[in-house]
Amino acid sequence: MAHIDLGNDLPGIRGPMAYRPETAKPLNELAEILLRDDNNTLTRGERELIGSYVSGLNDCFFCHNVHGALAQHYMQCDTKYIDDIKKDFRSTQLSEKMKTLLSIAGSVQKSGRQVSALQIEDAKNAGATDKEIHDTVLIAAAFCMFNRYVDGLATWAPAERQVYIDRAAQRAEEGYIDFDLYK
Amino acid sequence: MAHIDLGNDLPGIRGPMAYRPETAKPLNELAEILLRDDNNTLTRGERELIGSYVSGLNDCFFCHNVHGALAQHYMQCDTKYIDDIKKDFRSTQLSEKMKTLLSIAGSVQKSGRQVSALQIEDAKNAGATDKEIHDTVLIAAAFCMFNRYVDGLATWAPAERQVYIDRAAQRAEEGYIDFDLYK
Repeated sequence: MAHIDLGNDLPGIRGPMAYRPETAKPLNELAEILLRDDNNTLTRGERELIGSYVSGLNDCFFCHNVHGALAQHYMQCDTKYIDDIKKDFRSTQLSEKMKTLLSIAGSVQKSGRQVSALQIEDAKNAGATDKEIHDTVLIAAAFCMFNRYVDGLATWAPAERQVYIDRAAQRAEEGYIDFDLYK
Repeated sequence: MAHIDLGNDLPGIRGPMAYRPETAKPLNELAEILLRDDNNTLTRGERELIGSYVSGLNDCFFCHNVHGALAQHYMQCDTKYIDDIKKDFRSTQLSEKMKTLLSIAGSVQKSGRQVSALQIEDAKNAGATDKEIHDTVLIAAAFCMFNRYVDGLATWAPAERQVYIDRAAQRAEEGYIDFDLYK
């Protein structure tokens, strides 16, 4: 049971978002621009993967699975690949650029101060642009917020991972702004 | 020097916000609603104090000082009081309710999962409403994002604390949305 009376039984972040739509609006707009806007050289799958990876590090079951399922949907891969990335992305078939960006995201999860000049240099050498590095840092930082919002209020989440996988295609289509918060 | 070429020499979060105005818009809207909206039973000073306190825990010099100076401005207190709260809020003259809310904010800074049912119970017993608890969790979570955004990109910040104090009245008046990002 959530720490406060949310007045609804929606899962994860949707509960407090429906409870406080005034703050839900900019939160969803931020997610839409960072994760879904087409004016980005990182694919939607790559951006969802960064979010899912950071959520895994923060031990946020809901966000890790929602965004892992979305990454899986966009990248047309299986759940094992998402799990392998969580476990040890360096030993996967991800591009060198994505490996350097996940390394930066992993440092941001600990603290902004953990990001080193060497990590940035590695990312640039692997072809990452300034904007891609910017967005990686902000996506990782934003999930440090979303994860704390979800778990700090003790919201509930479906325990079956298949639920998230089954809903990913619909989530991908509806995006973060236009869906009905109350469904 | 920042990790990427921001194309401006603005301090702290203003640098990347001017670099990427598409994401700055929802970030500023979130800050405006959480910290400044008058439809809130927490005062502006109390909300800025939560943000400053969490920024101190995250060792984010820029955010700690910007929002500490704003709290000081709204609460009409001196810098020593803000520093005492950072050091040990439990031994200050803060209200019992604010002490329980800062305790929750301190847990959120570590992880959403750190917030305990007992902390929530203490806050409710001290008179905190569900909405006040919600906003405390989201303010603390949001600063875990803002702090990582500022430091993850290695932005620069004025070193003199007086700079922040001198600008607080103007910042308080202009708010988080209508100011000119490029000044």
